[in-house]
Amino acid sequence: MTVEVVSRARCFGGEQRVLRHHSRETGTEMRFAAFLPPQALGGAKVPVVWFLAGLTCTEENFTVKAGAQRVAAELGLLLVAPDTSPRGDGVPDDPDKAYDFGLGAGFYVDATQEPWKQNYRMRSYVERELPELVGAALPADLSRQGIMGHSMGGHGALTIALRNPGRFAAVSAFAPICSPLRCPWGEKALGGYLGPDRAAWRDYDATALIEDGARVADILVDQGTADGFLESQLKPELLEEACGKAGIPLTLRRQEGYDHSYFFIASFVEDHLRWHARRLGLA
Amino acid sequence: MTVEVVSRARCFGGEQRVLRHHSRETGTEMRFAAFLPPQALGGAKVPVVWFLAGLTCTEENFTVKAGAQRVAAELGLLLVAPDTSPRGDGVPDDPDKAYDFGLGAGFYVDATQEPWKQNYRMRSYVERELPELVGAALPADLSRQGIMGHSMGGHGALTIALRNPGRFAAVSAFAPICSPLRCPWGEKALGGYLGPDRAAWRDYDATALIEDGARVADILVDQGTADGFLESQLKPELLEEACGKAGIPLTLRRQEGYDHSYFFIASFVEDHLRWHARRLGLA
Repeated sequence: MTVEVVSRARCFGGEQRVLRHHSRETGTEMRFAAFLPPQALGGAKVPVVWFLAGLTCTEENFTVKAGAQRVAAELGLLLVAPDTSPRGDGVPDDPDKAYDFGLGAGFYVDATQEPWKQNYRMRSYVERELPELVGAALPADLSRQGIMGHSMGGHGALTIALRNPGRFAAVSAFAPICSPLRCPWGEKALGGYLGPDRAAWRDYDATALIEDGARVADILVDQGTADGFLESQLKPELLEEACGKAGIPLTLRRQEGYDHSYFFIASFVEDHLRWHARRLGLA
Repeated sequence: MTVEVVSRARCFGGEQRVLRHHSRETGTEMRFAAFLPPQALGGAKVPVVWFLAGLTCTEENFTVKAGAQRVAAELGLLLVAPDTSPRGDGVPDDPDKAYDFGLGAGFYVDATQEPWKQNYRMRSYVERELPELVGAALPADLSRQGIMGHSMGGHGALTIALRNPGRFAAVSAFAPICSPLRCPWGEKALGGYLGPDRAAWRDYDATALIEDGARVADILVDQGTADGFLESQLKPELLEEACGKAGIPLTLRRQEGYDHSYFFIASFVEDHLRWHARRLGLA
């Protein structure tokens, strides 16, 4: 459980770090990014907000593109951004090197199928191993956590919050994949990692989890109306329907003219962090 | 003089564009990034702030890493970020492919030496051609301009402002190369592009321009104290000395613990944009 510092840089009075460690879950070296707000540099344990990134991303995308550190520094939030898949020699990849399966596309699941199941254990990595490491290596108050994500990582944030009732005071997403059971990205990924039995997929589908009884206090989702993946892959109307039936308050904001990029995330990340901070008792 | 839109994305209520055109100065296709604040999307002409990037950068680094659009949207500033050198087939590069000369390292000079002088005309490109293009293709009020930059681009911003009195209402820099005549990066670049006669270099040295009589109203510089290039390459004390002798008010802020990265720029870009806005009559 040794965590090494790859880099550190002062940022908004806090410190942006990239860290690496050997993962017992994935069997590989994994990297993650952590922003320590000024309050944490002073020694205090602070609440944690997890950010799960989308297809093709690493721990770097959110860290360099979202502009979240400014607000996290003000609010006193520790931001943790993991990678999106195992990587390295010997880790199998999509045979066609497609962007939507294999490397960079772990979908936050524990694979059950060969050849994926040895390394592709991103559910256990993000749900169990990484919180243990963060709690041990960083000034993190794990009694106060929020989780958010983008696209594939929005799916990750929603499903992890739904499967772990009480752990997260807040959950939000940018342009999440709302139902992997009902979109091409999800069918390819869950079919590949979990096999053809679609009953096994329900643990990784926010709308199915809600139908099966899982609950969170409320959800914030931003979705750009000019997002090229909106109709074919993301389908926020499915989450809206599931939350409506279940009585989960969903704040779904359709942002006019925004696309799927980090320019969209940067535009609204402050709203999300303040949403989390209020539910974490900070503002 | 055709400017094509490569990409556009809504961002903080404005629009981030990447544009390309054939350059008469460099003889190549050049790209630049432009952020149009919401005020400009409504049709109004707005003031322009130029950002000149450092070694190895393109038009993309500032655009995706600095988080400047939020403040520019609030203030109503059009941000333009050019590339740092000509690129493409036939453009000569450093024989050793070093990062500090040739591609990505144009130093904002008009080269006079072979084989550089045909393409490496970044002074004329940034001082003349690009303003003409921006004025024609974008809702830019060129009677109100500010200029800023980072490292090599800080050198560019300072020297362009000093050589063009009255054009810029404000000039600022992050960790600028203050005197290319007196640092290894500058000696290599100016020696290569301009040849051994150091008298010809003075037009591209902020401290020499000030010694030779050039003036600006005032200057803002941020410099991280943990910047690995501070003592060997950047030397803000030389600018401090030149400004002191010339009576140019220099606000030089030594930022404790900050390095040379965009995490440093992101932390202070709001201060710089507000400095520019005040001098542009906006705030």
